Amino acid sequence: MSTSNKRQRGADGPNSTTEKEITSTMADYRKPDAKTLQTLKDAANRLRIDSIKATSASKSGHPTSCCSAADVISVLFYNTMRYTLSEPRHPSSDRFVLSKGHAAPVLYAAWAQAGLFPREDLLNLRKIDSDLEGHPTPRLNFIDVGTGSLGQGLSVACGMAYTGKYWDKASYRVYCMLGDGESAEGSVWEAMAWGSHYNLDNLVAIFDVNRLGQSEPTALQHEMDTYRKRAEAFGWNTYVVDGHDVEALCKVLHEASSVKGKPSCIIAKTYKGKGIPGVEDEENFHGKPMGDRSDGAIKAIQGLIAGENNVGPQPMTDDAPKINLTNIKMTQPPSYSLGDKVATRAAYGTGLAKLGQANDRVVAFDADVKNSTFSEKLKKAKPEQFVECFIAEQNMVGVGIGAATRDRAVVFCSTFACFLSRAYDQIRMAAISQSNVNLSGSHVGVSIGEDGPSQMALEDLAMFRAIPGAVVFYPSDAVSCERACELAANTKGICYIRTSRPATPVIYSNDEPFQVGKAKVVRKSDNDQVTIVAAAVTLLEATIAADELAKAGINVRIVDLFTIKPLDVDTLQASAKATGGRVLTVEDHYPEGGIGEAVSAGLSEFPNITVKKLAVREVPRSGPSAALLEMFGISASCITKAVQEML
Amino acid sequence: MSTSNKRQRGADGPNSTTEKEITSTMADYRKPDAKTLQTLKDAANRLRIDSIKATSASKSGHPTSCCSAADVISVLFYNTMRYTLSEPRHPSSDRFVLSKGHAAPVLYAAWAQAGLFPREDLLNLRKIDSDLEGHPTPRLNFIDVGTGSLGQGLSVACGMAYTGKYWDKASYRVYCMLGDGESAEGSVWEAMAWGSHYNLDNLVAIFDVNRLGQSEPTALQHEMDTYRKRAEAFGWNTYVVDGHDVEALCKVLHEASSVKGKPSCIIAKTYKGKGIPGVEDEENFHGKPMGDRSDGAIKAIQGLIAGENNVGPQPMTDDAPKINLTNIKMTQPPSYSLGDKVATRAAYGTGLAKLGQANDRVVAFDADVKNSTFSEKLKKAKPEQFVECFIAEQNMVGVGIGAATRDRAVVFCSTFACFLSRAYDQIRMAAISQSNVNLSGSHVGVSIGEDGPSQMALEDLAMFRAIPGAVVFYPSDAVSCERACELAANTKGICYIRTSRPATPVIYSNDEPFQVGKAKVVRKSDNDQVTIVAAAVTLLEATIAADELAKAGINVRIVDLFTIKPLDVDTLQASAKATGGRVLTVEDHYPEGGIGEAVSAGLSEFPNITVKKLAVREVPRSGPSAALLEMFGISASCITKAVQEML
Repeated sequence: MSTSNKRQRGADGPNSTTEKEITSTMADYRKPDAKTLQTLKDAANRLRIDSIKATSASKSGHPTSCCSAADVISVLFYNTMRYTLSEPRHPSSDRFVLSKGHAAPVLYAAWAQAGLFPREDLLNLRKIDSDLEGHPTPRLNFIDVGTGSLGQGLSVACGMAYTGKYWDKASYRVYCMLGDGESAEGSVWEAMAWGSHYNLDNLVAIFDVNRLGQSEPTALQHEMDTYRKRAEAFGWNTYVVDGHDVEALCKVLHEASSVKGKPSCIIAKTYKGKGIPGVEDEENFHGKPMGDRSDGAIKAIQGLIAGENNVGPQPMTDDAPKINLTNIKMTQPPSYSLGDKVATRAAYGTGLAKLGQANDRVVAFDADVKNSTFSEKLKKAKPEQFVECFIAEQNMVGVGIGAATRDRAVVFCSTFACFLSRAYDQIRMAAISQSNVNLSGSHVGVSIGEDGPSQMALEDLAMFRAIPGAVVFYPSDAVSCERACELAANTKGICYIRTSRPATPVIYSNDEPFQVGKAKVVRKSDNDQVTIVAAAVTLLEATIAADELAKAGINVRIVDLFTIKPLDVDTLQASAKATGGRVLTVEDHYPEGGIGEAVSAGLSEFPNITVKKLAVREVPRSGPSAALLEMFGISASCITKAVQEML
Repeated sequence: MSTSNKRQRGADGPNSTTEKEITSTMADYRKPDAKTLQTLKDAANRLRIDSIKATSASKSGHPTSCCSAADVISVLFYNTMRYTLSEPRHPSSDRFVLSKGHAAPVLYAAWAQAGLFPREDLLNLRKIDSDLEGHPTPRLNFIDVGTGSLGQGLSVACGMAYTGKYWDKASYRVYCMLGDGESAEGSVWEAMAWGSHYNLDNLVAIFDVNRLGQSEPTALQHEMDTYRKRAEAFGWNTYVVDGHDVEALCKVLHEASSVKGKPSCIIAKTYKGKGIPGVEDEENFHGKPMGDRSDGAIKAIQGLIAGENNVGPQPMTDDAPKINLTNIKMTQPPSYSLGDKVATRAAYGTGLAKLGQANDRVVAFDADVKNSTFSEKLKKAKPEQFVECFIAEQNMVGVGIGAATRDRAVVFCSTFACFLSRAYDQIRMAAISQSNVNLSGSHVGVSIGEDGPSQMALEDLAMFRAIPGAVVFYPSDAVSCERACELAANTKGICYIRTSRPATPVIYSNDEPFQVGKAKVVRKSDNDQVTIVAAAVTLLEATIAADELAKAGINVRIVDLFTIKPLDVDTLQASAKATGGRVLTVEDHYPEGGIGEAVSAGLSEFPNITVKKLAVREVPRSGPSAALLEMFGISASCITKAVQEML
């Protein structure tokens, strides 16, 4: 249950770790023997050497950021984490997210040294025919999500950990390494608050505090106590350690595994360029290969290595359940009567609930507007499949991306569409992550009325259309909105469902079939003179205008795109051809990047078609919905006038 | 100086307030007399009544969110803040930012009760012909920035406070009220970290902790100690108070004014709907007018009022310097030779430095990539005009918006263009705020090469074009880039300058004039067959293609748009007409919302023009710049092929 997921608050307050919370005590901890410790140290130094070699070969990259992280990575990959080389993204294996994605070479080196692929391959770093890219992407079979835009990894890790703890109920654990520089990103603190709120004791965040940013020292440099206070204040079981002391790292990682009820945070004091003579802890070496210093650095580090490479994963327990996310159908088809007035946002909630009832891996996240987006309908139907994310949209999207990894859940994230702009970088990265996350934004355009421009999404189509591979649904009624949800649940890649606040008439019968990329001609005659492309509130306005124009003997054709991307160019072209090449678009969105530009661009290679566009052309204001449609030029009367001007 | 702005770290660590830091001690504090306290209580209750009445009249709005805040607002506006009614946005007056913008009615009521306008006007709340909108916007003469997208106000307040402390060196102070729900937004914690880092002791944040969010209680409810720990860990002088105790509020606000070296945070424990019988501290009343409960609520609250309305501002000290931000010219014109290879990002830094040398109110903020965006050139030339914002783009943009308010500075914010997506909600709100902030994004497109897709901006044109009124510069060489900076400094509204990583040839002479909305035809002949529209790296590719095509007897015209928005439709149309209606666009951007769609949309009403578009059509990858241009279809050879296919 969503509510029972929340941490229990005792007299001690939420953030104090008491003795009884540690079920296996330090008595269980056996200090690794000297040989093991040396093996881990050697492995760390090999990671350094491989990182230096790889970035020297590619003549770009971030070796110093790898060197600070090497000891942590060594202990994680060869002492702590349980995984299998035969299937690096096995559902039951521990997860690792390298939030500081620019340290990619050390991560690649870790998998190579574990035996996944030959270490020599590391020399192909950043080549166009190698998947060992400058920053990690899931083109590699051991990467879950793309990183490189800083501050996003911990949210993703939170989503993985939530899934593991509450839905998979499996023993896998989730580790996330962050840089200290990226801890300035607010999204990190959204994730810190969320991870502790949901008691994610299967989650460990490691901050690689190497003191130096790209262009100058970080704000906090090596103020370890400040980091500690912040992490503790955000509810995490926190350790400050020497990040180059493999024994200390083994110990705190073990201890973290035994703490119940809260996530653990390891603040590792490290030095950027650790081990490289003349570079360690010095400024001006961010993102610079070692060049002439390379051989000397390798020699110095090699000199610290005592034994042969002899590392690999700890065995995992295969206890993640088998699940099926394919062919998810709503428990019931839409059940409306033509002409019923239903807001598409309400239909979104209905569709979501029906999908959630059909498959218990259909889950939803919302940012404290579930009673406005109607995602609360899923919460009411299947409370354990809904998770509140509070007012933190970046984290909500990141958590959703994390929950969707390894095909563990079909995820829907919802909030007011305008606030998805808050998470645009996360959405951008979701495409690079090959994520299947679905997003829904409600309260679009001036039609929301009195709340005013801060609450009106007028750029969301531009945002989502510019995401490669995304499907952008803009359903015009409740029937098509429910079907959009169903299609989104079964469509790979990022799907966006744009929903509206006002209730608009149901225009499709309950058995109307819908497909991605297929528009509907909702009004036509044998002598249409203009094709009007509209959606939702403007489709209703277009219908009113069409009736008015018909009285004057002017017939128009009306197209409902259903998906703005992919665009049904065939239907548009055929309609345009049938209406003298005249197309009029009308949208509750700014002119740029929306329906008008999509249609203009889609038809731009066909001569003899002209596209006129009605859209919201300035910052709008508060007022009644109908008055705003009129004031900002997208009402029935504006459509009527535009059609008349085109003839 | 940027470095000297940073807080001094003593043995006590940065976050401990020592006795000596408090220059005027509590001995200075005189408890307000009983009459004053009653006046403040009465004023608060009048604010409640006005909020209830206004939202009842508008039948929408958030009276309960106003009632929790009323006592704080009363004390701030009638006991603490110094301002003038004759010019509410006077440069010397204290600033107030209502970050929880949905409590707009209580803010409007505060100004009305102070005497700025009749209280009866409050009944026009949310009407289409009233500027008393659902959320505050600068259409009102007492509002600096639009709020309503939560979590943004504190960054804006930080920018105002930085300006006051370091640039204006004036006595005005800055107050920001946040909701507790919005404290889940990471941007709040970016601002918290930044405000303490820069010792903004003229800044006070007040958290209205009313326990209840929109759809359920907040994550922390009334855990005041957790709030306190978080604020202290982020370096703020922090008080936890009863937010309905006007005496306690007077005291801590006075004490905050005497603390040196750090900003102050007041965590006010309040009750949502305070004073409304049956509603106070109850769930399910967010954003709901009181309806039938209205009369009873007003009567109950009216019964608490003892005296007549007798409140107003404290007098301000007019000590903000007079400054001039008009007609800012670079100290020197561009000085390049044609064919010089210069990256536009480098020219951005040069232009910025020349503007900064011309006017000491030209300032820059950057997110720890100043050595990549080249904003460091301003830092080197005029260190006191540059401020490091570390890796926190949302806050950087918010701070920039704040610094630009009341025409105190000409602000440029820069980072990698892809990371401006992190601040898209702030940028969206900047338009509503009528901000003049300028933004520059570097490292656009696949041409950055090996760093890979996470670092490539391929949606930034879509983002910025969809901002109403924005000017989108995409300079193709160093000369035009410097001029873009100069134009941006003198252009009202939001300006975006898109710069590139690779060095490309200088194509304009140093005295070439540039205008917003005016394209350049950079290659033409009497028998051009296709118009190619390109920019920066693709303009260079187009030139190479043109040379190649010329060998085969095919001449092409090349257009450099300079501003993608506004679009020079006249030049495009004329060029298209001169080249048989054939237009080819080529851009280092995704197809949606960029040059291709802008041109398609701009020409869509002209028959007989066809537009073919080359753009990056999938998530790219790491590799050498030239190889990526080829692989993703925007190289010279791709252009040559496309032109041939068009003929």
